Amino acid sequence: MNIVFIGAGNLATHLAGACRAAGHNIVQVYSRTMENAVLLAAKTGAEAVNELVQISPAAQLYIFSVKDDALPFVIQGMPHTGGVWVHTAGSLPMQLFAARNAKHGVIYPLQTFSKQRKVDFTTIPVFIEGSNTTVTRLLEELAGTLTPNIHYLSGDKRRYLHLAAVYACNFVNHMYTLASEITEKEEISFDVLMPLILETASKVTDMPPRAAQTGPAVRFDKEVMQHHLSLLPDDRMRELYTLISTSIHQHSL
Amino acid sequence: MNIVFIGAGNLATHLAGACRAAGHNIVQVYSRTMENAVLLAAKTGAEAVNELVQISPAAQLYIFSVKDDALPFVIQGMPHTGGVWVHTAGSLPMQLFAARNAKHGVIYPLQTFSKQRKVDFTTIPVFIEGSNTTVTRLLEELAGTLTPNIHYLSGDKRRYLHLAAVYACNFVNHMYTLASEITEKEEISFDVLMPLILETASKVTDMPPRAAQTGPAVRFDKEVMQHHLSLLPDDRMRELYTLISTSIHQHSL
Repeated sequence: MNIVFIGAGNLATHLAGACRAAGHNIVQVYSRTMENAVLLAAKTGAEAVNELVQISPAAQLYIFSVKDDALPFVIQGMPHTGGVWVHTAGSLPMQLFAARNAKHGVIYPLQTFSKQRKVDFTTIPVFIEGSNTTVTRLLEELAGTLTPNIHYLSGDKRRYLHLAAVYACNFVNHMYTLASEITEKEEISFDVLMPLILETASKVTDMPPRAAQTGPAVRFDKEVMQHHLSLLPDDRMRELYTLISTSIHQHSL
Repeated sequence: MNIVFIGAGNLATHLAGACRAAGHNIVQVYSRTMENAVLLAAKTGAEAVNELVQISPAAQLYIFSVKDDALPFVIQGMPHTGGVWVHTAGSLPMQLFAARNAKHGVIYPLQTFSKQRKVDFTTIPVFIEGSNTTVTRLLEELAGTLTPNIHYLSGDKRRYLHLAAVYACNFVNHMYTLASEITEKEEISFDVLMPLILETASKVTDMPPRAAQTGPAVRFDKEVMQHHLSLLPDDRMRELYTLISTSIHQHSL
Protein backbone atom coordinates (compact mmCIF):
# COMPACT_ATOMS: atom_id res chain seq x y z
CA MET A 1 0.00 0.00 0.00
CA ASN A 2 1.26 3.55 -0.80
CA ILE A 3 1.05 5.59 2.37
CA VAL A 4 1.79 9.23 3.27
CA PHE A 5 2.40 10.04 6.94
CA ILE A 6 1.37 13.49 8.14
CA GLY A 7 3.23 13.88 11.43
CA ALA A 8 6.49 12.39 12.71
CA GLY A 9 5.93 12.06 16.45
CA ASN A 10 6.09 8.99 18.71
CA LEU A 11 3.05 7.23 17.29
CA ALA A 12 3.81 8.09 13.64
CA THR A 13 7.38 6.87 14.07
CA HIS A 14 6.31 3.47 15.37
CA LEU A 15 3.37 3.04 13.00
CA ALA A 16 5.38 4.08 9.92
CA GLY A 17 8.18 1.74 10.96
CA ALA A 18 5.75 -1.14 11.36
CA CYS A 19 4.09 -0.38 7.99
CA ARG A 20 7.46 -0.28 6.27
CA ALA A 21 8.52 -3.54 7.93
CA ALA A 22 5.25 -5.11 6.73
CA GLY A 23 6.20 -4.25 3.13
CA HIS A 24 4.21 -1.08 2.57
CA ASN A 25 5.61 1.84 0.63
CA ILE A 26 5.93 5.01 2.70
CA VAL A 27 5.76 7.64 -0.03
CA GLN A 28 6.28 10.75 2.10
CA VAL A 29 6.61 11.92 5.66
CA TYR A 30 5.35 15.42 6.41
CA SER A 31 6.29 17.33 9.53
CA ARG A 32 6.16 21.07 10.18
CA THR A 33 9.68 20.57 11.55
CA MET A 34 11.88 19.46 8.64
CA GLU A 35 14.34 17.79 11.00
CA ASN A 36 11.66 15.41 12.30
CA ALA A 37 10.36 14.73 8.79
CA VAL A 38 13.89 13.88 7.59
CA LEU A 39 14.52 11.60 10.57
CA LEU A 40 11.44 9.45 10.00
CA ALA A 41 11.67 9.62 6.19
CA ALA A 42 15.24 8.29 6.37
CA LYS A 43 14.09 5.37 8.54
CA THR A 44 11.26 4.44 6.19
CA GLY A 45 12.72 5.17 2.75
CA ALA A 46 10.28 8.05 2.23
CA GLU A 47 10.57 11.61 0.94
CA ALA A 48 10.60 14.25 3.67
CA VAL A 49 8.42 17.35 3.23
CA ASN A 50 7.55 20.24 5.55
CA GLU A 51 4.89 22.05 3.51
CA LEU A 52 1.40 20.58 3.16
CA VAL A 53 1.26 21.70 -0.50
CA GLN A 54 4.19 19.38 -1.25
CA ILE A 55 2.13 16.33 -0.32
CA SER A 56 1.69 13.86 -3.19
CA PRO A 57 -1.93 13.47 -4.33
CA ALA A 58 -1.40 9.89 -5.57
CA ALA A 59 -1.19 7.76 -2.39
CA GLN A 60 -3.87 5.28 -1.33
CA LEU A 61 -3.79 6.24 2.31
CA TYR A 62 -2.91 9.41 4.29
CA ILE A 63 -2.31 8.79 7.98
CA PHE A 64 -2.64 11.96 10.08
CA SER A 65 -0.76 11.55 13.33
CA VAL A 66 -0.36 15.04 14.74
CA LYS A 67 -1.32 16.60 18.09
CA ASP A 68 -5.10 16.54 18.58
CA ASP A 69 -5.15 20.36 18.87
CA ALA A 70 -3.40 20.74 15.53
CA LEU A 71 -5.44 18.22 13.51
CA PRO A 72 -8.29 20.57 12.40
CA PHE A 73 -5.75 23.12 11.08
CA VAL A 74 -3.74 20.45 9.27
CA ILE A 75 -6.93 19.11 7.64
CA GLN A 76 -7.85 22.65 6.50
CA GLY A 77 -4.43 23.13 4.98
CA MET A 78 -4.25 19.79 3.15
CA PRO A 79 -4.25 19.88 -0.65
CA HIS A 80 -6.88 17.84 -2.46
CA THR A 81 -5.72 14.24 -2.92
CA GLY A 82 -7.04 10.86 -4.01
CA GLY A 83 -7.04 8.12 -1.38
CA VAL A 84 -8.36 7.74 2.13
CA TRP A 85 -7.63 10.11 5.05
CA VAL A 86 -7.42 8.65 8.54
CA HIS A 87 -6.21 9.82 11.93
CA THR A 88 -4.78 7.86 14.85
CA ALA A 89 -6.35 9.74 17.77
CA GLY A 90 -8.37 8.08 20.52
CA SER A 91 -10.41 11.13 21.43
CA LEU A 92 -11.37 12.59 18.05
CA PRO A 93 -14.26 11.60 15.75
CA MET A 94 -13.49 10.58 12.18
CA GLN A 95 -16.08 13.15 11.05
CA LEU A 96 -13.38 15.83 11.35
CA PHE A 97 -12.43 14.84 7.81
CA ALA A 98 -15.96 14.77 6.39
CA ALA A 99 -16.03 18.24 4.85
CA ARG A 100 -12.74 17.69 3.01
CA ASN A 101 -12.78 13.99 2.05
CA ALA A 102 -15.71 11.56 2.06
CA LYS A 103 -13.33 8.59 2.30
CA HIS A 104 -12.06 8.84 5.87
CA GLY A 105 -11.60 6.85 9.03
CA VAL A 106 -9.51 6.05 12.09
CA ILE A 107 -6.74 3.62 12.86
CA TYR A 108 -6.02 3.71 16.60
CA PRO A 109 -3.19 1.53 17.92
CA LEU A 110 -3.71 1.24 21.68
CA GLN A 111 -0.20 1.50 23.06
CA THR A 112 2.23 3.97 24.65
CA PHE A 113 5.01 4.93 22.27
CA SER A 114 8.35 6.56 22.97
CA LYS A 115 10.69 7.00 20.03
CA GLN A 116 13.68 5.39 21.74
CA ARG A 117 11.84 2.23 22.86
CA LYS A 118 11.03 -0.70 20.57
CA VAL A 119 7.59 -2.26 20.70
CA ASP A 120 6.31 -5.45 19.13
CA PHE A 121 3.46 -4.25 16.93
CA THR A 122 2.00 -7.76 16.58
CA THR A 123 0.85 -7.62 20.23
CA ILE A 124 -0.91 -4.26 19.90
CA PRO A 125 -4.70 -4.05 19.59
CA VAL A 126 -5.64 -1.79 16.68
CA PHE A 127 -9.08 -0.17 16.54
CA ILE A 128 -10.46 0.82 13.15
CA GLU A 129 -13.44 2.77 11.87
CA GLY A 130 -14.28 3.75 8.29
CA SER A 131 -16.74 6.16 6.69
CA ASN A 132 -17.81 3.40 4.29
CA THR A 133 -17.16 -0.30 3.65
CA THR A 134 -14.37 0.35 1.15
CA VAL A 135 -12.47 2.43 3.71
CA THR A 136 -13.06 -0.13 6.44
CA ARG A 137 -11.77 -2.92 4.17
CA LEU A 138 -8.65 -0.87 3.34
CA LEU A 139 -7.94 -0.25 7.04
CA GLU A 140 -8.62 -3.90 7.82
CA GLU A 141 -6.14 -4.89 5.12
CA LEU A 142 -3.46 -2.53 6.46
CA ALA A 143 -4.01 -3.41 10.13
CA GLY A 144 -4.00 -7.11 9.24
CA THR A 145 -0.42 -6.80 8.01
CA LEU A 146 0.64 -5.30 11.38
CA THR A 147 -1.20 -7.30 14.07
CA PRO A 148 -3.76 -10.10 14.38
CA ASN A 149 -5.43 -8.02 17.12
CA ILE A 150 -7.94 -5.89 15.11
CA HIS A 151 -11.20 -4.48 16.45
CA TYR A 152 -13.98 -2.37 14.96
CA LEU A 153 -14.94 0.45 17.30
CA SER A 154 -17.16 3.49 16.87
CA GLY A 155 -15.82 6.92 17.75
CA ASP A 156 -18.31 7.09 20.66
CA LYS A 157 -16.80 4.00 22.26
CA ARG A 158 -13.23 4.84 21.22
CA ARG A 159 -13.18 8.07 23.24
CA TYR A 160 -14.04 6.09 26.38
CA LEU A 161 -11.37 3.53 25.56
CA HIS A 162 -8.88 6.39 25.24
CA LEU A 163 -9.99 7.78 28.61
CA ALA A 164 -9.51 4.34 30.20
CA ALA A 165 -6.07 4.15 28.58
CA VAL A 166 -5.10 7.46 30.23
CA TYR A 167 -5.78 5.87 33.62
CA ALA A 168 -4.16 2.51 32.79
CA CYS A 169 -1.04 4.04 31.26
CA ASN A 170 -0.42 7.79 31.70
CA PHE A 171 -1.70 8.01 35.28
CA VAL A 172 -0.01 4.74 36.19
CA ASN A 173 3.30 6.00 34.83
CA HIS A 174 2.91 9.16 36.90
CA MET A 175 2.57 6.99 40.02
CA TYR A 176 5.90 5.43 39.02
CA THR A 177 7.36 8.94 38.73
CA LEU A 178 6.16 9.89 42.22
CA ALA A 179 7.52 6.60 43.63
CA SER A 180 10.87 7.26 41.96
CA GLU A 181 11.05 10.73 43.52
CA ILE A 182 10.58 9.24 46.96
CA THR A 183 13.25 6.56 46.48
CA GLU A 184 15.71 8.97 44.84
CA LYS A 185 15.45 11.40 47.73
CA GLU A 186 16.23 8.57 50.16
CA GLU A 187 19.02 7.22 47.94
CA ILE A 188 17.25 3.90 47.50
CA SER A 189 17.58 2.40 44.01
CA PHE A 190 14.31 2.59 42.04
CA ASP A 191 15.22 -0.85 40.66
CA VAL A 192 14.19 -2.59 43.89
CA LEU A 193 10.59 -1.62 43.05
CA MET A 194 10.69 -3.37 39.67
CA PRO A 195 9.46 -6.85 40.75
CA LEU A 196 6.56 -5.11 42.52
CA ILE A 197 5.74 -2.99 39.46
CA LEU A 198 5.82 -5.98 37.12
CA GLU A 199 3.78 -8.21 39.47
CA THR A 200 1.17 -5.46 39.96
CA ALA A 201 0.71 -5.22 36.18
CA SER A 202 0.82 -8.96 35.64
CA LYS A 203 -1.67 -9.60 38.45
CA VAL A 204 -4.54 -7.95 36.56
CA THR A 205 -4.05 -10.33 33.66
CA ASP A 206 -5.62 -13.04 35.82
CA MET A 207 -7.77 -11.27 38.41
CA PRO A 208 -10.00 -8.15 38.29
CA PRO A 209 -8.12 -5.06 39.57
CA ARG A 210 -10.65 -4.54 42.36
CA ALA A 211 -9.84 -8.03 43.71
CA ALA A 212 -6.10 -7.41 43.28
CA GLN A 213 -6.10 -4.29 45.48
CA THR A 214 -3.77 -4.45 48.52
CA GLY A 215 -2.21 -1.83 50.79
CA PRO A 216 -3.18 0.47 53.66
CA ALA A 217 -6.02 2.31 51.87
CA VAL A 218 -8.12 -0.76 51.07
CA ARG A 219 -7.67 -1.97 54.68
CA PHE A 220 -8.34 1.64 55.77
CA ASP A 221 -5.30 1.46 58.03
CA LYS A 222 -5.52 5.01 59.41
CA GLU A 223 -2.26 4.99 61.31
CA VAL A 224 -0.18 3.94 58.30
CA MET A 225 -1.90 6.54 56.13
CA GLN A 226 -1.32 9.28 58.73
CA HIS A 227 2.30 8.21 58.98
CA HIS A 228 2.68 8.31 55.18
CA LEU A 229 1.17 11.79 55.04
CA SER A 230 3.77 12.95 57.58
CA LEU A 231 6.57 11.69 55.29
CA LEU A 232 5.34 13.48 52.16
CA PRO A 233 7.22 16.64 51.20
CA ASP A 234 4.39 19.05 50.29
CA ASP A 235 0.65 19.76 50.30
CA ARG A 236 0.19 18.73 46.66
CA MET A 237 1.61 15.27 47.34
CA ARG A 238 -0.52 14.98 50.50
CA GLU A 239 -3.68 16.02 48.63
CA LEU A 240 -3.05 13.42 45.91
CA TYR A 241 -2.29 10.70 48.49
CA THR A 242 -5.51 11.44 50.38
CA LEU A 243 -7.71 11.65 47.29
CA ILE A 244 -6.45 8.35 45.80
CA SER A 245 -6.60 6.57 49.18
CA THR A 246 -10.18 7.74 49.73
CA SER A 247 -11.09 6.59 46.23
CA ILE A 248 -9.50 3.16 46.85
CA HIS A 249 -11.47 2.78 50.07
CA GLN A 250 -14.76 3.88 48.48
CA HIS A 251 -14.28 1.43 45.59
CA SER A 252 -13.64 -1.44 48.02
CA LEU A 253 -16.94 -1.01 49.87
CA MET B 1 14.94 -23.26 61.09
CA ASN B 2 11.96 -23.65 63.50
CA ILE B 3 9.53 -20.82 62.83
CA VAL B 4 6.23 -19.69 64.34
CA PHE B 5 3.96 -17.48 62.23
CA ILE B 6 1.78 -14.99 64.06
CA GLY B 7 -0.82 -14.00 61.47
CA ALA B 8 -2.28 -15.87 58.49
CA GLY B 9 -3.01 -13.09 55.99
CA ASN B 10 -1.78 -12.59 52.42
CA LEU B 11 1.84 -11.91 53.30
CA ALA B 12 2.06 -14.60 56.02
CA THR B 13 0.53 -17.14 53.64
CA HIS B 14 3.12 -16.50 50.91
CA LEU B 15 6.09 -16.14 53.27
CA ALA B 16 5.21 -19.27 55.27
CA GLY B 17 4.72 -21.21 52.04
CA ALA B 18 8.10 -20.07 50.74
CA CYS B 19 9.80 -20.93 54.09
CA ARG B 20 8.25 -24.38 54.07
CA ALA B 21 9.28 -24.93 50.43
CA ALA B 22 12.83 -23.89 51.37
CA GLY B 23 12.94 -26.69 53.96
CA HIS B 24 12.16 -24.78 57.15
CA ASN B 25 9.94 -26.20 59.85
CA ILE B 26 6.80 -24.16 60.45
CA VAL B 27 6.03 -25.09 64.05
CA GLN B 28 2.80 -23.16 64.51
CA VAL B 29 0.50 -20.71 62.80
CA TYR B 30 -1.42 -18.36 65.09
CA SER B 31 -4.45 -16.40 63.93
CA ARG B 32 -7.21 -14.82 65.99
CA THR B 33 -9.55 -16.51 63.52
CA MET B 34 -9.10 -20.28 63.91
CA GLU B 35 -10.32 -20.91 60.35
CA ASN B 36 -7.44 -18.86 58.89
CA ALA B 37 -4.90 -20.49 61.24
CA VAL B 38 -6.08 -23.96 60.20
CA LEU B 39 -5.94 -23.08 56.50
CA LEU B 40 -2.32 -21.92 56.57
CA ALA B 41 -1.24 -24.56 59.12
CA ALA B 42 -2.59 -27.30 56.83
CA LYS B 43 -0.61 -25.88 53.90
CA THR B 44 2.62 -25.73 55.86
CA GLY B 45 2.43 -28.82 58.09
CA ALA B 46 2.13 -26.66 61.21
CA GLU B 47 -0.07 -26.68 64.30
CA ALA B 48 -2.91 -24.14 64.23
CA VAL B 49 -3.55 -22.03 67.33
CA ASN B 50 -5.86 -19.09 68.02
CA GLU B 51 -4.74 -18.07 71.51
CA LEU B 52 -1.43 -16.29 72.03
CA VAL B 53 -0.81 -18.29 75.24
CA GLN B 54 -0.73 -21.48 73.16
CA ILE B 55 2.33 -20.30 71.27
CA SER B 56 5.34 -22.58 71.69
CA PRO B 57 8.28 -20.94 73.51
CA ALA B 58 10.88 -23.14 71.78
CA ALA B 59 11.10 -21.79 68.19
CA GLN B 60 14.13 -19.93 66.84
CA LEU B 61 12.09 -17.31 65.03
CA TYR B 62 8.66 -15.71 65.49
CA ILE B 63 7.38 -13.87 62.42
CA PHE B 64 4.64 -11.36 63.23
CA SER B 65 2.59 -10.65 60.14
CA VAL B 66 -0.60 -8.99 61.35
CA LYS B 67 -2.28 -5.68 60.51
CA ASP B 68 -0.08 -2.74 61.51
CA ASP B 69 -2.80 -1.43 63.84
CA ALA B 70 -2.96 -4.75 65.68
CA LEU B 71 0.78 -5.36 66.08
CA PRO B 72 1.31 -3.44 69.39
CA PHE B 73 -1.56 -5.36 71.04
CA VAL B 74 -0.32 -8.72 69.75
CA ILE B 75 3.18 -7.96 71.09
CA GLN B 76 1.69 -7.06 74.50
CA GLY B 77 -0.24 -10.32 74.61
CA MET B 78 2.64 -12.58 73.53
CA PRO B 79 3.93 -15.06 76.12
CA HIS B 80 7.64 -15.03 76.91
CA THR B 81 9.59 -17.14 74.43
CA GLY B 82 13.15 -17.91 73.41
CA GLY B 83 14.13 -16.95 69.87
CA VAL B 84 13.96 -13.82 67.77
CA TRP B 85 10.82 -11.74 67.15
CA VAL B 86 10.48 -9.97 63.79
CA HIS B 87 7.71 -8.27 61.88
CA THR B 88 7.12 -7.89 58.14
CA ALA B 89 5.77 -4.34 58.01
CA GLY B 90 7.18 -1.59 55.83
CA SER B 91 6.00 1.31 57.97
CA LEU B 92 6.78 0.15 61.50
CA PRO B 93 10.10 0.37 63.40
CA MET B 94 11.60 -2.82 64.82
CA GLN B 95 11.82 -1.04 68.19
CA LEU B 96 8.16 -1.94 68.81
CA PHE B 97 9.52 -5.23 70.15
CA ALA B 98 12.29 -3.73 72.31
CA ALA B 99 10.43 -3.69 75.64
CA ARG B 100 9.43 -7.37 75.29
CA ASN B 101 12.38 -9.02 73.53
CA ALA B 102 15.90 -7.67 72.98
CA LYS B 103 16.40 -10.02 70.00
CA HIS B 104 14.18 -8.48 67.36
CA GLY B 105 14.16 -7.27 63.78
CA VAL B 106 12.31 -6.94 60.48
CA ILE B 107 12.03 -9.06 57.37
CA TYR B 108 10.17 -7.05 54.71
CA PRO B 109 9.47 -8.76 51.37
CA LEU B 110 8.67 -6.01 48.88
CA GLN B 111 5.81 -7.48 46.87
CA THR B 112 2.00 -7.40 46.57
CA PHE B 113 0.46 -10.65 47.79
CA SER B 114 -3.01 -12.04 47.19
CA LYS B 115 -3.71 -15.49 48.60
CA GLN B 116 -5.06 -16.91 45.35
CA ARG B 117 -2.12 -15.79 43.17
CA LYS B 118 1.24 -17.56 43.06
CA VAL B 119 4.43 -15.51 43.17
CA ASP B 120 8.00 -16.55 42.58
CA PHE B 121 9.73 -15.68 45.84
CA THR B 122 13.21 -15.89 44.28
CA THR B 123 12.53 -12.64 42.36
CA ILE B 124 11.39 -10.69 45.44
CA PRO B 125 13.71 -8.19 47.13
CA VAL B 126 13.75 -8.82 50.88
CA PHE B 127 14.81 -6.04 53.28
CA ILE B 128 16.17 -7.06 56.68
CA GLU B 129 17.13 -5.27 59.87
CA GLY B 130 18.23 -6.77 63.18
CA SER B 131 18.66 -5.43 66.74
CA ASN B 132 22.11 -7.07 66.89
CA THR B 133 24.50 -8.99 64.64
CA THR B 134 23.20 -12.40 65.71
CA VAL B 135 19.66 -11.43 64.71
CA THR B 136 20.84 -9.94 61.42
CA ARG B 137 22.78 -13.16 60.63
CA LEU B 138 19.71 -15.28 61.40
CA LEU B 139 17.52 -13.15 59.11
CA GLU B 140 20.21 -13.20 56.45
CA GLU B 141 20.33 -16.99 56.69
CA LEU B 142 16.55 -17.30 56.38
CA ALA B 143 16.19 -14.74 53.58
CA GLY B 144 19.08 -16.40 51.73
CA THR B 145 17.08 -19.61 51.45
CA LEU B 146 14.19 -17.69 49.83
CA THR B 147 15.76 -15.20 47.40
CA PRO B 148 19.19 -14.00 46.27
CA ASN B 149 17.81 -10.44 46.43
CA ILE B 150 18.61 -9.43 50.07
CA HIS B 151 19.16 -5.87 51.28
CA TYR B 152 19.96 -4.32 54.64
CA LEU B 153 17.74 -1.32 55.29
CA SER B 154 17.16 0.81 58.38
CA GLY B 155 13.62 1.44 59.57
CA ASP B 156 14.02 5.13 58.65
CA LYS B 157 14.64 4.26 55.00
CA ARG B 158 12.22 1.32 54.97
CA ARG B 159 9.22 3.56 55.74
CA TYR B 160 10.02 5.66 52.66
CA LEU B 161 10.41 2.52 50.55
CA HIS B 162 7.00 1.39 51.77
CA LEU B 163 5.53 4.78 50.85
CA ALA B 164 7.06 4.53 47.36
CA ALA B 165 5.62 1.01 47.06
CA VAL B 166 2.14 2.36 47.82
CA TYR B 167 2.44 4.62 44.76
CA ALA B 168 4.07 1.99 42.51
CA CYS B 169 1.62 -0.76 43.42
CA ASN B 170 -1.53 0.16 45.37
CA PHE B 171 -2.18 3.47 43.61
CA VAL B 172 -1.27 1.97 40.24
CA ASN B 173 -3.72 -0.88 40.79
CA HIS B 174 -6.44 1.64 41.64
CA MET B 175 -5.81 3.34 38.29
CA TYR B 176 -6.44 -0.09 36.70
CA THR B 177 -9.69 -0.30 38.70
CA LEU B 178 -10.85 3.10 37.44
CA ALA B 179 -9.92 2.15 33.86
CA SER B 180 -11.86 -1.10 34.19
CA GLU B 181 -14.94 0.78 35.39
CA ILE B 182 -14.84 2.97 32.29
CA THR B 183 -14.46 0.03 29.90
CA GLU B 184 -17.09 -2.11 31.70
CA LYS B 185 -19.66 0.67 31.48
CA GLU B 186 -19.04 0.94 27.73
CA GLU B 187 -19.04 -2.86 27.31
CA ILE B 188 -15.47 -2.84 26.04
CA SER B 189 -13.37 -5.79 27.23
CA PHE B 190 -10.77 -4.75 29.84
CA ASP B 191 -8.46 -7.29 28.15
CA VAL B 192 -7.74 -4.93 25.24
CA LEU B 193 -5.87 -2.69 27.73
CA MET B 194 -3.52 -5.49 28.77
CA PRO B 195 -0.71 -4.91 26.20
CA LEU B 196 -0.75 -1.22 27.21
CA ILE B 197 -0.63 -2.07 30.94
CA LEU B 198 2.25 -4.51 30.48
CA GLU B 199 4.22 -2.18 28.19
CA THR B 200 3.76 0.75 30.61
CA ALA B 201 5.22 -1.34 33.43
CA SER B 202 7.96 -2.84 31.29
CA LYS B 203 8.95 0.57 29.90
CA VAL B 204 10.26 1.80 33.25
CA THR B 205 12.64 -1.15 33.43
CA ASP B 206 14.74 0.60 30.78
CA MET B 207 13.90 4.31 31.00
CA PRO B 208 13.17 6.66 33.93
CA PRO B 209 9.39 7.08 34.44
CA ARG B 210 9.62 10.84 33.85
CA ALA B 211 11.06 10.16 30.37
CA ALA B 212 8.46 7.44 29.73
CA GLN B 213 5.50 9.79 30.29
CA THR B 214 3.07 10.12 27.36
CA GLY B 215 -0.55 11.26 27.02
CA PRO B 216 -2.58 14.48 26.99
CA ALA B 217 -1.46 15.81 30.41
CA VAL B 218 2.27 15.87 29.66
CA ARG B 219 1.54 17.59 26.33
CA PHE B 220 -0.95 19.79 28.22
CA ASP B 221 -3.51 19.10 25.53
CA LYS B 222 -6.33 21.18 27.04
CA GLU B 223 -9.05 20.15 24.58
CA VAL B 224 -8.53 16.43 25.14
CA MET B 225 -8.48 16.93 28.90
CA GLN B 226 -11.69 19.01 28.79
CA HIS B 227 -13.28 16.35 26.62
CA HIS B 228 -12.24 13.61 29.06
CA LEU B 229 -13.67 15.56 31.99
CA SER B 230 -16.98 15.76 30.15
CA LEU B 231 -17.04 11.94 29.84
CA LEU B 232 -16.40 11.23 33.52
CA PRO B 233 -19.43 10.17 35.58
CA ASP B 234 -19.03 12.24 38.75
CA ASP B 235 -17.21 15.05 40.57
CA ARG B 236 -14.90 12.69 42.45
CA MET B 237 -13.61 11.18 39.21
CA ARG B 238 -13.20 14.65 37.71
CA GLU B 239 -11.31 15.92 40.76
CA LEU B 240 -8.92 12.95 40.62
CA TYR B 241 -8.42 13.35 36.86
CA THR B 242 -7.62 17.05 37.24
CA LEU B 243 -5.29 16.60 40.20
CA ILE B 244 -3.24 13.82 38.58
CA SER B 245 -3.12 15.64 35.21
CA THR B 246 -1.90 18.83 36.90
CA SER B 247 0.73 16.83 38.78
CA ILE B 248 1.91 15.17 35.53
CA HIS B 249 2.24 18.55 33.88
CA GLN B 250 4.09 20.09 36.83
CA HIS B 251 6.54 17.18 36.95
CA SER B 252 7.27 17.51 33.23
CA LEU B 253 8.38 21.15 33.48
